[in-house]
Amino acid sequence: MRVSRWEPNARGRLEQAALELFAEQGFADTTVPQITARAGLTTRTFFRHFSDKREVLFSYEEQLPGVIATLMSEAPAHLTAMEVMDRGLGTTVASRFEGQREYLMKRQAVVLSDASLRERELRKLSILSAAIHAGFLERGLSDLDATIAAQVGVTVFDVAVTRWLAQDSGRALPELFHETLEAVRNLTSAASAAPQAPATAPS
Amino acid sequence: MRVSRWEPNARGRLEQAALELFAEQGFADTTVPQITARAGLTTRTFFRHFSDKREVLFSYEEQLPGVIATLMSEAPAHLTAMEVMDRGLGTTVASRFEGQREYLMKRQAVVLSDASLRERELRKLSILSAAIHAGFLERGLSDLDATIAAQVGVTVFDVAVTRWLAQDSGRALPELFHETLEAVRNLTSAASAAPQAPATAPS
Repeated sequence: MRVSRWEPNARGRLEQAALELFAEQGFADTTVPQITARAGLTTRTFFRHFSDKREVLFSYEEQLPGVIATLMSEAPAHLTAMEVMDRGLGTTVASRFEGQREYLMKRQAVVLSDASLRERELRKLSILSAAIHAGFLERGLSDLDATIAAQVGVTVFDVAVTRWLAQDSGRALPELFHETLEAVRNLTSAASAAPQAPATAPS
Repeated sequence: MRVSRWEPNARGRLEQAALELFAEQGFADTTVPQITARAGLTTRTFFRHFSDKREVLFSYEEQLPGVIATLMSEAPAHLTAMEVMDRGLGTTVASRFEGQREYLMKRQAVVLSDASLRERELRKLSILSAAIHAGFLERGLSDLDATIAAQVGVTVFDVAVTRWLAQDSGRALPELFHETLEAVRNLTSAASAAPQAPATAPS
C-alpha cells in the first residue's frame, strides 16, 4: 500500500464525500469506508481527521469558540453587549460562512434528517453559548448578564443562519444577523413587563 | 406472582427510587431492576410508565408543552409577548415547580453528571421552545418574532430555574423569573445597536 502521508486537502475531500453520501443514501446507512472510497483516501486518513462519521458535519465549528474568544477580547471596551454581538459575532458568522452557503444548505438538510444529529447540533449551540458566556465574563459582565447575552447571541446566530439558508433573496448574512438582533430588541422592549402582579390564576 | 394492577403512586415511587440510586451509585451503573427493587415494584410496572431509565428524569416535563399551550391561548389578547411570558410561563413554572425544589436539586446534579443526560436536557428545552413558538404563532406573531420570543422564554425559564435551585436566599421562582426577564430587557435595550458599520475588521 502506498499511502502518502500528505494528502492535499484530505479534510475537505472527506467532508465533501461524506456530505454527498449522507444526502444520497442517508446518514445511518453511510459507512466510513464508503466515505473514504468516494474521497479516494484511506480510513486511516479519515481517523486522523475525525473521531467518527458524525463529527465530519461539525468539523468547521470546532474553531468557532476560539474565534469568538479572540473577537470578544479585541472588541473595544466601550461597546455594549449588543454591539459586541452585532459586530463581533455578526462579523465572525459572516466571514466564516459567506461563500459556503451551498455546502451549509446540504449539511442542514442532513442534520435535520437524523435525531442524533439534531441532538449534536443542540450541543454545538451550547458549546458556542459557553464560549460567548466566557467572553462576556472577561468583559466584566455579571454572570447573569453574561449568561443571558450568550443565549441571546446563540439564538440570533442560529435564527440568522437558518433564515440565510432558507431565503432566496440573496440577502447577506451580516444584514440578517443585524435584523434578527433588532427583532430581539424590539420584542423585549415592546412594553414594560407586567408588574409582579396578583396574577389572575387560571382556575 | 401477585402483581396488583393498581399500584398506588407507582410513578412517583419509581421516580423517587431512580433518583436516589442515580445519586448514590451513578446514572450509568443503575439498572431498571435495581430501581424497581428499591421501589418495591415490578419491571413490568416500570415499563408501563417509562420507556427507559433516562426518561424517568424527564417525566414531569412531558406535560409542560400542553400546559404552556393552554396558558398561552388563554392569555388576554392585549398582552405583549413579554407579558405573556412573565405571567403565563412564570406562573406555569412557579405552580409546577414550587414545592419540588429538593427533588429538582437532586435531579439537576444527576443530569449534569452524565453527557447523554445533558444532551437530553437540551432536547427538552428545544421541545419547550417549540411549544412556546407554536403558542405565539397562534397569537399572531410573525414566525421570526415567535421564534425569538420562544428562545427568550426558554432561556429565561432555564436561567431562572437554575438560579432558583442554586440560591440559598429562599426567593420565589416567579420573582426570579420576572427579574431574569427584566435583565434580558435591560441588556438588549442598553444602547442602540451599532449601525451596519464599516466594521474595523480584525487584521
